Amino acid sequence: MGCSLMLVCLCFNFYIYPLLSSSSSSSASAAASASASATGLQSEVDSISGSLYPEILRDEAVSRLYQLGKVSDAEDYLERTFMSPAAVRAGYLIRIWMEDAGLRTWIDHMGNVHGRVDGLNPSSKALLIGSHLDTVVDAGFFDGSLGIVSAIAALKALRVGGTLGRLVRPVEVIAFSDEEGVRFQSTFIGSAAVAGILPDSALQYSDKSGATVQEVLQRNSLQATKENLHQLKYDPDSVWGYAEVHIEQGPVLERVGMPLGVVKGIAGQTRLKVTVRGSQGHAGTVPMSMRHDPMVAAAELIVLLENVCKHPEDFLSFDDHCKDSSVQSLSGSLVCTVGEISPWPSASNVIPGQVVFTVDIRAMDDMGREAVIYEFSSRMYQICDRRSVSCNLERKHNAGAVMCDPELSTQLKSAAHSALRKMTNELDSEVPVLMSGAGHDAMAISHLTKVGMIFVRCRGGISHSPKEHVLDDDVWAAGLAVLAFLETHM
Amino acid sequence: MGCSLMLVCLCFNFYIYPLLSSSSSSSASAAASASASATGLQSEVDSISGSLYPEILRDEAVSRLYQLGKVSDAEDYLERTFMSPAAVRAGYLIRIWMEDAGLRTWIDHMGNVHGRVDGLNPSSKALLIGSHLDTVVDAGFFDGSLGIVSAIAALKALRVGGTLGRLVRPVEVIAFSDEEGVRFQSTFIGSAAVAGILPDSALQYSDKSGATVQEVLQRNSLQATKENLHQLKYDPDSVWGYAEVHIEQGPVLERVGMPLGVVKGIAGQTRLKVTVRGSQGHAGTVPMSMRHDPMVAAAELIVLLENVCKHPEDFLSFDDHCKDSSVQSLSGSLVCTVGEISPWPSASNVIPGQVVFTVDIRAMDDMGREAVIYEFSSRMYQICDRRSVSCNLERKHNAGAVMCDPELSTQLKSAAHSALRKMTNELDSEVPVLMSGAGHDAMAISHLTKVGMIFVRCRGGISHSPKEHVLDDDVWAAGLAVLAFLETHM
Repeated sequence: MGCSLMLVCLCFNFYIYPLLSSSSSSSASAAASASASATGLQSEVDSISGSLYPEILRDEAVSRLYQLGKVSDAEDYLERTFMSPAAVRAGYLIRIWMEDAGLRTWIDHMGNVHGRVDGLNPSSKALLIGSHLDTVVDAGFFDGSLGIVSAIAALKALRVGGTLGRLVRPVEVIAFSDEEGVRFQSTFIGSAAVAGILPDSALQYSDKSGATVQEVLQRNSLQATKENLHQLKYDPDSVWGYAEVHIEQGPVLERVGMPLGVVKGIAGQTRLKVTVRGSQGHAGTVPMSMRHDPMVAAAELIVLLENVCKHPEDFLSFDDHCKDSSVQSLSGSLVCTVGEISPWPSASNVIPGQVVFTVDIRAMDDMGREAVIYEFSSRMYQICDRRSVSCNLERKHNAGAVMCDPELSTQLKSAAHSALRKMTNELDSEVPVLMSGAGHDAMAISHLTKVGMIFVRCRGGISHSPKEHVLDDDVWAAGLAVLAFLETHM
Repeated sequence: MGCSLMLVCLCFNFYIYPLLSSSSSSSASAAASASASATGLQSEVDSISGSLYPEILRDEAVSRLYQLGKVSDAEDYLERTFMSPAAVRAGYLIRIWMEDAGLRTWIDHMGNVHGRVDGLNPSSKALLIGSHLDTVVDAGFFDGSLGIVSAIAALKALRVGGTLGRLVRPVEVIAFSDEEGVRFQSTFIGSAAVAGILPDSALQYSDKSGATVQEVLQRNSLQATKENLHQLKYDPDSVWGYAEVHIEQGPVLERVGMPLGVVKGIAGQTRLKVTVRGSQGHAGTVPMSMRHDPMVAAAELIVLLENVCKHPEDFLSFDDHCKDSSVQSLSGSLVCTVGEISPWPSASNVIPGQVVFTVDIRAMDDMGREAVIYEFSSRMYQICDRRSVSCNLERKHNAGAVMCDPELSTQLKSAAHSALRKMTNELDSEVPVLMSGAGHDAMAISHLTKVGMIFVRCRGGISHSPKEHVLDDDVWAAGLAVLAFLETHM
């Protein structure tokens, strides 16, 4: 299979880095914020300063994020997996906040927490806004939570501003019960159920203790039968679209100095397991010229992989009619990672007999991703032949890319732009458009309706770590952007 | 420190591969062997065929190797560590065999088993012949055992032939209690004690259960006090030299088709721990251009290390007056191995924050080895700088090369040649001279007296594995070579 057959016109341009001066997100509003009072609805209304709602969108939102970050199953770090005691407590807390924002709330049979306002036309197609309430082990306070908290905060700002009832369509916030997939090793249990793509068999997935998804739901009085699961699926005709705010989990926004970005799409992903087998031997007794060392072969393959993924244009051939844009598209979004490597027998004085390593390849361009895998694999076999070692490549996971809806993304971009303009008074800030290398609930929901996402800058691009951090003002910017987006539905 | 300062005239030539047709080691003697009887001394004497002693040097020796291979602390595989119950039983068995060969026996305070014959001049300097009775975990039957069994067999052949009393000097076989260092993570406990280089502190080394060397010896009624340890040291004036037979543990002899080789020296060794630290991140969210990935850096370093060690002439500069031979010397013996590598946090979807790997570098030329380490280290820092990762190199172990005594090696080479000539009737076979990349008891004993070694071919160069194998006829060749060597001491 030649590369030229695989890379056709999927011509994206993912990273748009406007050369901005680092934005100071608090200048215009510092005085307003300092003078704000947060004691009760009336004082909130009184302190509204130019619709910036710093008390709700920043101070209270940040406070809620830290409050939610303390709801953990572990004493010393944050861990909140699907339907764990802490996840259930977090769900109740979120439900209280939803009600505080004027939403009607319920918890569905898969543990998702819903809060809905019907607006002027209760039977219109609903705008869904969501993110996940579960976390990884030793997590940060923003992954998932930020999307839930900022959506609730924006709706509360509407309520406080007296405009919640003016929405032309129902708006529903959903805090999904599982995105990380830590407990059952299966991501998107919550959002996939809403999208109607969760298989019946998921009810029988079991955790380390042997308890199934169904059982842990039943322990919390949620009757997750197949019938209830089927009923949980939203009718596509009842939904207008889905928006999600999420921390970037990468360093791009920080590098370009922008608090917010809009997501063009979510990368497709392939996970490979590469096994290299050679001749095990004594480190002191086998001359270099007689070795068939799988460790050095693996090292050469890892360096090759990096080269292919950094410079696909040097390795792949493209169709003539679209070659430049295809190459740019692939180069812009392609990322390849070797995160695990394991030699056998793993002793400092033994030439390994076998080395196994993982490869994680992601790109927006599914055919480009396949072309990269094909090219890597071809060259891998050549290297292994030359070294007289055997190589084997297994595909462990495969998921196609998901494109965000262009119209919805344009609206989100305008909303983000409006929010940043209000905060910084800079008129010419271009909101970056970037791709998401990480998976999100939007991937599952894309099977139900059009999706769009806003990314929020996080310090050092660090996520899945207690070091994960978002500036208070960036939390505020996120809430303001959701608010501006909601105002387009009035 | 420039390489040209480090590589001076240490001009060795380690691998001498005579282009021999693969020798058939049994042709001349097959008939003799087939007609041999092994029932009792008289029949042994009766069956002696041209001093080839196939019943003793091959059949009985092979039988004893398999018998010793069954003396294990584990049920399903061979494991016999320092002073374990199986090691103690193996010591008793060896002692019985020594006595069967006409030797006077004892066990010293460090658990070494000795068998000695005084010969014509009991006060002369003694020839020591030995190897180790301990094994690695899941070991083969020949590593260590072959040296003990072949020495005892050769002395038994002298006894059977009636010439044991004609030795002009005492000959002492020593089965050392520890060479592998499995139990106490310290090699050569047995031979280092005899050589007088075991520190007093070694008595307090503790195993995984917390038991010390002293305690495990005391449990076997061996009073290993400091005073007894000091008394155990042999007086250098009482020793003529030390010879050791050992499996090659490498593939050279098999490749050149020779059952025996003579060891020029035992390589010096350095063990390094390399730590590469980069920026941990989400595999999907950090663009390739923004990564500081310690895994790819480590892979590049491993490939570099292989290049330096395969082609040191491309990396090092040498003094003009000795450059060709130095390069040849280093190239011939230099081996570098990465046996362990460990990323953190080791998840397929996480760019590691840290990767640690081991480097084992061995060469006959100590200054050449240092030059290689210097060159690798310099280039490592360049690579790490270019990749914006931090690299750290720790030296965990260092041991200088040990040269075998030229005169003793010449005698052993003649003895090996004589043995092979007797077995194959080939007059022009050149016994290969090779280096030992593995450490041996001879390294410790070199601090006491001159040393020499004979290597025996093992299948596929495999050792430290149940697949370790030596042909019956090669066991015989080893015994015949020791016998021929002993006959030069008459």
